[in-house]
Amino acid sequence: MDISPLAPQDYPELPLMSGVKLGVAEAGIKYKGRTDVLLMTFEKPVQIAGVFTKSFCPSAPVDWCKQMLANGKASAILVNSGNANAFTGVKGWEAVRASAEMVADALNVRTNEVYLASTGVIGEPLDATAFGSVVDKLVAQEVSASWLDAAKAIMTTDTFPKVAGKSVLVGEKSYQINGIAKGSGMIAPDMATMLSFVVTDFPLPASYLQKVLKKAVDRSFNAVTVDSDTSTSDTVLLCSIGSAAETKQPTDLEMRAFEKALLSVLTDLAHQIVRDGEGASKFVEINVLGAKSSRSAKKVAMSIANSPLVKTAIAGEDANWGRVVMAVGKAGEPADRDKLAIWFGDVRVAVEGERDPDYSEDDASAVMKNEEISISVDLGLGRGKATVWTCDLTKQYVAINGDYRS
Amino acid sequence: MDISPLAPQDYPELPLMSGVKLGVAEAGIKYKGRTDVLLMTFEKPVQIAGVFTKSFCPSAPVDWCKQMLANGKASAILVNSGNANAFTGVKGWEAVRASAEMVADALNVRTNEVYLASTGVIGEPLDATAFGSVVDKLVAQEVSASWLDAAKAIMTTDTFPKVAGKSVLVGEKSYQINGIAKGSGMIAPDMATMLSFVVTDFPLPASYLQKVLKKAVDRSFNAVTVDSDTSTSDTVLLCSIGSAAETKQPTDLEMRAFEKALLSVLTDLAHQIVRDGEGASKFVEINVLGAKSSRSAKKVAMSIANSPLVKTAIAGEDANWGRVVMAVGKAGEPADRDKLAIWFGDVRVAVEGERDPDYSEDDASAVMKNEEISISVDLGLGRGKATVWTCDLTKQYVAINGDYRS
Repeated sequence: MDISPLAPQDYPELPLMSGVKLGVAEAGIKYKGRTDVLLMTFEKPVQIAGVFTKSFCPSAPVDWCKQMLANGKASAILVNSGNANAFTGVKGWEAVRASAEMVADALNVRTNEVYLASTGVIGEPLDATAFGSVVDKLVAQEVSASWLDAAKAIMTTDTFPKVAGKSVLVGEKSYQINGIAKGSGMIAPDMATMLSFVVTDFPLPASYLQKVLKKAVDRSFNAVTVDSDTSTSDTVLLCSIGSAAETKQPTDLEMRAFEKALLSVLTDLAHQIVRDGEGASKFVEINVLGAKSSRSAKKVAMSIANSPLVKTAIAGEDANWGRVVMAVGKAGEPADRDKLAIWFGDVRVAVEGERDPDYSEDDASAVMKNEEISISVDLGLGRGKATVWTCDLTKQYVAINGDYRS
Repeated sequence: MDISPLAPQDYPELPLMSGVKLGVAEAGIKYKGRTDVLLMTFEKPVQIAGVFTKSFCPSAPVDWCKQMLANGKASAILVNSGNANAFTGVKGWEAVRASAEMVADALNVRTNEVYLASTGVIGEPLDATAFGSVVDKLVAQEVSASWLDAAKAIMTTDTFPKVAGKSVLVGEKSYQINGIAKGSGMIAPDMATMLSFVVTDFPLPASYLQKVLKKAVDRSFNAVTVDSDTSTSDTVLLCSIGSAAETKQPTDLEMRAFEKALLSVLTDLAHQIVRDGEGASKFVEINVLGAKSSRSAKKVAMSIANSPLVKTAIAGEDANWGRVVMAVGKAGEPADRDKLAIWFGDVRVAVEGERDPDYSEDDASAVMKNEEISISVDLGLGRGKATVWTCDLTKQYVAINGDYRS
């Protein structure tokens, strides 16, 4: 498949982190001639936090990770592409248990310190023995693979690997945050799944880690949408490899610096997922302000971002603000038609419930021709605001998701 | 535009009703060479009920009708196509008032007995004087137009007019229910709007009428979806022309007969809207049973019906039950993966959280080739059930809504 037109020009080279080893291998689970397994191992057990799909029908690995999180410690993360181990009943649970035990035995660690994520075909039992041929080899390997290689191994129908990193200066010490992600492609009978694995040497206990991860995910991965559909397997794991001695409650100033950097890494990865959205030709930022609350603003923003009529208008480079009004109205959140103002880029197209008196079709249309477009809505009711990101809805989306049988 | 492949083979000829006069005219509001105004007048004020869009940004005519409903009486309904009078601020309200006054003067009735509905371009002020040339003429006309002509006058981007009727036998007396509807097409800068006007000679007071209409709309118009987007103008009006002497509380038996017939008419019209869904090539029925409640069942059914991934799979004739699992999981309603069963037509594809042991790809694929497809999901939790209808998502949908600028 062609690389998305919205793909980044180049990939950052993330520094390796001492105490973290990345191993990639070809297990041939579904794909041939490419890596499909990532084993991330930690020299010592690390602090871990996780955020998962809200689906009521989660995959077996999601169930597994949620249970393991109670311990808050991780020695390894095993990820495979090609099979999601979702909707596989009892067999699915047996497969995750067998996989975790295999890794635990090879590393000589506890089974409940092994985390798992799978992405790919659903409804197809995952054969855990597929890992048998590669786990021992990966454990024996001394040299770490690169973060870019790790990102490549977890791709399914992604058209480019997704990596992002940032360093944080706290006092005189510099810490690193490295992250990889995959997501947004789906080809039968696959299903879009968003996976992301982030590691930092900033020392934080698991309880704290969980709090900052949840908060950052709400403003990054949970603020992007390609088509409103939610995978059964979405998983974000954040590990802190800071040494036990260091792993203490940080100061407020330290926390702010870290949270800011973490949000920046997650947002970068989340944007990359949108840029790899199926059939995407435009990257769209939706800003809602003046809402009764931030929660309300986000619901309105998501209603706009998920509206097929808004998304097709963007694909058609049509400054169709009427469809934005429609999407605001259907969100079910407080809105007053006669206080609404709408901008495409910095061109105000509507104000006080009417078309802007200075409305210029030409100006608005010029904005729509850009590859990156922002739509802003001021509800004029309060101080709540939110920003979400999405892409347009093109014939290519329908082709990718509907054509493969023809 | 070509007539939808899912259009009915022929249109029923609805009987005229004494006391109801239909008038259609060409006011040239936007379209040329076709009727664009419908004036429905009643010999005597009739009982009326209405259900409207839940949008927080409704059109001016919706605001008007909601206010008038407090009286529960109607002498006329004026409908135009070509301009929705939505998001037109103060001018919009002035236009509805002027239109209603014009009709009231011509008929010599009270202004608050005139109902209005507009559909078409939004954000463009509606010039009420456009009605000036036709209202007097329509009032003077002695012969009623047909219900089919009425349905044609309110079309926007519909590819066929929508009419449905039914007679109800109560005791030895036969009553009639006649309905028309429009909806489901949208071309820039229009927006899909669903309008429906239904008249019966079954005598019912407005308060009762409102109750049965609400109930029937929930199971018909509010149980169909083309693309999850809600118009600012959706309006359903139901009038009872039964004489004042007759207009009394009916018996339970009479009510059941009437409600059943009303539901049948509304469902017929609602299905026609789906069959005229933009780009639709398949008519899809979604049945959810075994839910905790009917409300819960409907939410799950709508989640499936609105999922772009489910809809593109249907367009691709792909029995992709994994996407149905995904849509069940994201609905936010109680569901237990390991109790789920899924059917395409009468082929069970999944049971107890796994692919059906007897799953046959060929059998499932054969079902998907049909023009009408049913998908059933048993949640296995309770006795709640619901049925909704939708169409598939095709490249044609994106073309209709996104191509016009290119």
